[in-house]
Amino acid sequence: MYFPQLTPLFKALLDSVSGQPVAVIGHARPDGDCIGSQIALARVLQSLGHKTICVNGDPVPRRIQYLVAPETPFFLPDEMPGTTEPQSGSSDNSTLTSIFVDCADHDRGGAKVRNRFPSPAGCIDHHLSNADFAAHNIVDPAAAATCEMLAGMFLDLGLPIDEITARALYAGINTDTGQFRFGSTTPRTFKLAAELVARGASPAEAGYEIYERESWGKLKLLDAFLRSLTRECDNRACIGILPDGIFDLTGTTPEDTEGLVDYARCIDGVEIGVLIEERPGAIKASLRAKNPAMRVDRIAAIFGGGGHACAAGLNMKKAPSLAEFRAQLVTAIAAQLDAVKN
Amino acid sequence: MYFPQLTPLFKALLDSVSGQPVAVIGHARPDGDCIGSQIALARVLQSLGHKTICVNGDPVPRRIQYLVAPETPFFLPDEMPGTTEPQSGSSDNSTLTSIFVDCADHDRGGAKVRNRFPSPAGCIDHHLSNADFAAHNIVDPAAAATCEMLAGMFLDLGLPIDEITARALYAGINTDTGQFRFGSTTPRTFKLAAELVARGASPAEAGYEIYERESWGKLKLLDAFLRSLTRECDNRACIGILPDGIFDLTGTTPEDTEGLVDYARCIDGVEIGVLIEERPGAIKASLRAKNPAMRVDRIAAIFGGGGHACAAGLNMKKAPSLAEFRAQLVTAIAAQLDAVKN
Repeated sequence: MYFPQLTPLFKALLDSVSGQPVAVIGHARPDGDCIGSQIALARVLQSLGHKTICVNGDPVPRRIQYLVAPETPFFLPDEMPGTTEPQSGSSDNSTLTSIFVDCADHDRGGAKVRNRFPSPAGCIDHHLSNADFAAHNIVDPAAAATCEMLAGMFLDLGLPIDEITARALYAGINTDTGQFRFGSTTPRTFKLAAELVARGASPAEAGYEIYERESWGKLKLLDAFLRSLTRECDNRACIGILPDGIFDLTGTTPEDTEGLVDYARCIDGVEIGVLIEERPGAIKASLRAKNPAMRVDRIAAIFGGGGHACAAGLNMKKAPSLAEFRAQLVTAIAAQLDAVKN
Repeated sequence: MYFPQLTPLFKALLDSVSGQPVAVIGHARPDGDCIGSQIALARVLQSLGHKTICVNGDPVPRRIQYLVAPETPFFLPDEMPGTTEPQSGSSDNSTLTSIFVDCADHDRGGAKVRNRFPSPAGCIDHHLSNADFAAHNIVDPAAAATCEMLAGMFLDLGLPIDEITARALYAGINTDTGQFRFGSTTPRTFKLAAELVARGASPAEAGYEIYERESWGKLKLLDAFLRSLTRECDNRACIGILPDGIFDLTGTTPEDTEGLVDYARCIDGVEIGVLIEERPGAIKASLRAKNPAMRVDRIAAIFGGGGHACAAGLNMKKAPSLAEFRAQLVTAIAAQLDAVKN
């Protein structure tokens, strides 16, 4: 058994929705683990005779779209096909029930999704902060990815993992572990990856689709970001800036900033990497730490933001000037570096 | 058995060097798979009672140095501790014999290494072009890394994999698969990774040491490389150039070019990425393809180089001008793109 404690809970969730159509819900601004989990769960539910749809508050990102098969269409909340409103406690086969995946709380799907699905039948997630908001909560913060949980529980129950499912689960594990790099990666992660590749997941396909289809503009954006890098706090922090207008200049969109902040963090000696995005009258920033002890979520909170210990962000609608914000941020980082003795 | 055909050959190699001190030889400009293989083989030989040294024509790269333990010191050919000259066919216990790892031919260690070790007892390698130059040749072009072969054969024979060995093998597999991304990555690769992590390899350690300790100069070098990128052949090839003097300018060394060529390859639509390094009177180039059908080793061969179907290189000591070489290379790439119908 890969998940001896969770698999019986998952079985109970499956039993509780038996025969019903299921909306498999992911979070807003979905990532590979979210989309992969939705596709995989929808496919397995289909094999059990369920009708399924996948619903997200935001579209599937470009680099993950290769996973979406005709069998597992995705809908925005406004575009969902007409269905009976869910009725809590009903066992009517025509009732559309919901299972949330990779969502730490009921709001992660966005307000429209929450309103449409007020009583989730289940939640399958690996976030430490999970709020146990569904009837059946299957949560393992030690899992590297929600897709790792699903892969293990499917195998534990002997549920069929076809090629569509295997590719989706593999992509989720790959992306949520930073390509098998984060501390959450365990022997179980690799064993499950082996099982998925044996069932049709292709490391080369995932590598190509997710990491080898950069746009020309993205490289120009990276170039601009690299040139902007400066170090602060005795070279323990590194800050890069994307000035207002850079997206037009490079033919990119805010989605293309993904991964850039890692270049600020990856420098030897740097403990906190920062990307600052200047927007008309507003400022967005991403903070990344190498060590969770650094608690960059606390730095972000000073500016109204939040997030994880190693990865946080902020979004100031009424922002000071770029120079002023940058100075305030450096002060806050310096204080945090000082507070966290290594 | 992970390697049912090769493991008996490996056993025969081990038997043939029984009791002798062994120099474990890697190639010039060593990479993670080379150094990892040397450390791992040296450790296992030590467990069998052998004295070992590791020898390379060039130093261990900075980002791989974390693998080098006091138990497995590395030597340049000129710095080797005094030993008896090897005598072909001798079974004298004081004779220093040699096993080459990750070397496609006898010259890959450099002239000094070749002269010092003219009669290798064994060669363990995964290069397609391996020349079977040793007494015992253990070669599997289907393996993702020489470290994958060693890990599998060690397990097949029940040889001890301690933490030093596990970390070294893991690093080799991680780097030679491009973080489990290349087409050579199979269920076996992942199963062996699981075994190594269970024995003390740390994905987070490898991720930090190999990918999160970039030098400030390396980012400046990347910046220069990105700015130099141009596309050719209807945007199916992308070429970047590091001009003579760029290492001094950015405070880097040729070692820091590692990984740069991937930025040329990773662009959507680009099938072949190239890095050209201009040196005084000489030219070096690395070629990378997304698809092995592209056989970039054949393009490299036109200029006296070689390598893998997806990753090849060349090194012209008497080179034409940069502009002339670039034009010749574009012609060769265009011909290859034309020859390989997709």
